[in-house]
Amino acid sequence: MPEFLTLLPPQDALDKLLSKYSPRLESESCLTSDSLDRIIAESIIASYSLPSFPRTTVDGYAVIAANTHGASESLPAYLTHIGEVPMGDVPDFEILANQCATIHTGGMLPKGANACVMIENTQQVGDGEVEILKAVANGENVLQIGEDVAEGQEVIFKGTKLRPAEIGGLMALGITNVRVAKKPLVGIISSGDEVIPPEEDMRPGQVRDINSYSLKSLVEQSGGLPKNYGIVSDTLESMRDAAKHALEECDLVIITAGSSASTRDLTAQVIDELGEPGVLVHGVNVRPGKPTILGVCEGKPMIGLPGNPVSALVIAGLFVVPIIEKMTGQLQERPKSSVLAKLNLNLSSQTGREDWIAVKLSETDKGFLAEPIFGRSNLIFTLASADGLIRIPPDANGLEIGTLVKVWFI
Amino acid sequence: MPEFLTLLPPQDALDKLLSKYSPRLESESCLTSDSLDRIIAESIIASYSLPSFPRTTVDGYAVIAANTHGASESLPAYLTHIGEVPMGDVPDFEILANQCATIHTGGMLPKGANACVMIENTQQVGDGEVEILKAVANGENVLQIGEDVAEGQEVIFKGTKLRPAEIGGLMALGITNVRVAKKPLVGIISSGDEVIPPEEDMRPGQVRDINSYSLKSLVEQSGGLPKNYGIVSDTLESMRDAAKHALEECDLVIITAGSSASTRDLTAQVIDELGEPGVLVHGVNVRPGKPTILGVCEGKPMIGLPGNPVSALVIAGLFVVPIIEKMTGQLQERPKSSVLAKLNLNLSSQTGREDWIAVKLSETDKGFLAEPIFGRSNLIFTLASADGLIRIPPDANGLEIGTLVKVWFI
Repeated sequence: MPEFLTLLPPQDALDKLLSKYSPRLESESCLTSDSLDRIIAESIIASYSLPSFPRTTVDGYAVIAANTHGASESLPAYLTHIGEVPMGDVPDFEILANQCATIHTGGMLPKGANACVMIENTQQVGDGEVEILKAVANGENVLQIGEDVAEGQEVIFKGTKLRPAEIGGLMALGITNVRVAKKPLVGIISSGDEVIPPEEDMRPGQVRDINSYSLKSLVEQSGGLPKNYGIVSDTLESMRDAAKHALEECDLVIITAGSSASTRDLTAQVIDELGEPGVLVHGVNVRPGKPTILGVCEGKPMIGLPGNPVSALVIAGLFVVPIIEKMTGQLQERPKSSVLAKLNLNLSSQTGREDWIAVKLSETDKGFLAEPIFGRSNLIFTLASADGLIRIPPDANGLEIGTLVKVWFI
Repeated sequence: MPEFLTLLPPQDALDKLLSKYSPRLESESCLTSDSLDRIIAESIIASYSLPSFPRTTVDGYAVIAANTHGASESLPAYLTHIGEVPMGDVPDFEILANQCATIHTGGMLPKGANACVMIENTQQVGDGEVEILKAVANGENVLQIGEDVAEGQEVIFKGTKLRPAEIGGLMALGITNVRVAKKPLVGIISSGDEVIPPEEDMRPGQVRDINSYSLKSLVEQSGGLPKNYGIVSDTLESMRDAAKHALEECDLVIITAGSSASTRDLTAQVIDELGEPGVLVHGVNVRPGKPTILGVCEGKPMIGLPGNPVSALVIAGLFVVPIIEKMTGQLQERPKSSVLAKLNLNLSSQTGREDWIAVKLSETDKGFLAEPIFGRSNLIFTLASADGLIRIPPDANGLEIGTLVKVWFI
């Protein structure tokens, strides 16, 4: 039986993992002004209406609409000017028949008034009189109480990622502290006897640790709190010790395997030893990233990523990011950043396997073009020169030139 | 003459501003591991090749390709096994004719060898002999020196926003510190006698300060360092004092005006008084946001934003964000986050004016649908319920149902 029939596709593998543990959703208090990109852990109900008083949306005069009916440039209505609405305060007068008062945008409509005339449609005449050159309807140029938000309305849903607009809305309601999801602590372990810390001098045969840092950045970007556990050697003992330590401290543990098959198998052995149910998925039907391992130990996910830096990043995007999102209770209501682009050449792939291909975008009159970047063995600078990734689904044997593809930004 | 003929469209207004000052591009040193989303202030040239030694991409045997030619399952080649390549070190042997050595993915190709055979295509037989069941070509399953990056190659361009992939690439080259653009300090001043800090109790007629916080978040999101100068009252003196103070300390100053026309004019007066050339643009042909003011004082941009929170955020997206990007020297090489969506109804607009409309997205089988969110006077929760904004260009008098529109995420 071909191998791709025995390996799960990525989505099924993720579903299997997600079905085997329930994240503890912990929350913490955060200043609203510092809550950009945090996931709100409570739904926000407006405790009062916005606006909380009838406000004008123009500079001009507060009037009784009926007193302006029929008014025009050739036949103005004449109203008696009785005062000016103070900004930020309650007017201490009432508008009676055929009276008006100066009002500025955002000012409170005085008692008696039910509309405002824009200053452009008026003319001040002597002796405290104002000519109204255009009629207004009842309610015109006025925001009524609750027109933005009614008291008791749910205005922000639990699980929303806070953007500048939500932060502004919270402040409008006087909510200066907000409960947000705690950032999950994500332990990152690199392994490989050939791998050295980037700051060390490299001897022939050695390579510098990339994964600890690219994954740290990806975890940060996704709303997790990365914690690096350094590089461990390719032995069961050292990998188990590091993984046990990380599992005790973190909510999620990522191990990037040494590059050989035997060290990849060590990762699976460690995950199986550290708790139930252990390894759930060993190998995923995707390229790059086939040797991915997914497991759960004592209610915490453990992910074994391939050692190849590009595979590790692509696979972390497919598994680590959604796990972090689930751990923070993030609603999946908004589309991820992507653009549609036309493929600029034919791409072949193996039917039955999901492929992810790095592409570079260029913009033309007719939209974006996606140019696949080919690099043997998925080299890190191949990925760094790409704008995003496209997916070739498992039921295709490639994509034709001109196909409209979704490019996911990396 | 209709007003829209005298007001500049947003792009022309921005170009006018950008032409009137040259940002001082200052840089600072940053740990590469903490450089996510920073703008790199130097181009990176690879100081050595990657890989720096010939590496295998498979688990198997290092061989001389010619010794495998003609080998098949039915007629294997027999090679003498002479040792195992240590991970992270130089093999202390050489492959001679009809010899092979065990090698793991990422291991250094031993002297003499020029290809590797995958372990799946071999069989170990007794007495230190290996059966080769499939021929390999010269170079097969081997990454040559410099195949990812050649020594002297420019691998990251100055002005690139650092993503996890670039951070990984820098680490691969042993670059653990990197010069990045200093985050521009952006001063934010709110004004309006009716505006109170969000934590204060609100009296009738007052509204809470939204803009200081939504703009702070937008500045953070765009790579600036926000500094809030609080709320100043609607007098020339207090606004001038606050603006002068902010201009001394910051690289860019944003003033959100009180909502009335007279206080908006105060902003222009202050900008004109604080330095040459002063106000460059007073009023922009865009909705929302017509009363926008753009100026430069002593080489620093000063932006007067409308007091309406939605207008302020939309206009900050059109002007403040590109200014910050220019100040950090950010290359505009990657498309901004957006999706294409089909408009679900007819939208009308005034010809000659650029309109920005908040929309909510929904995903269907045939792609995204964009549903405009109508709210009178651009209320903050209208924006908070939107996924993004669409633009109606000035030369259109609206957009028809079914039009494919670009939705810019907010």
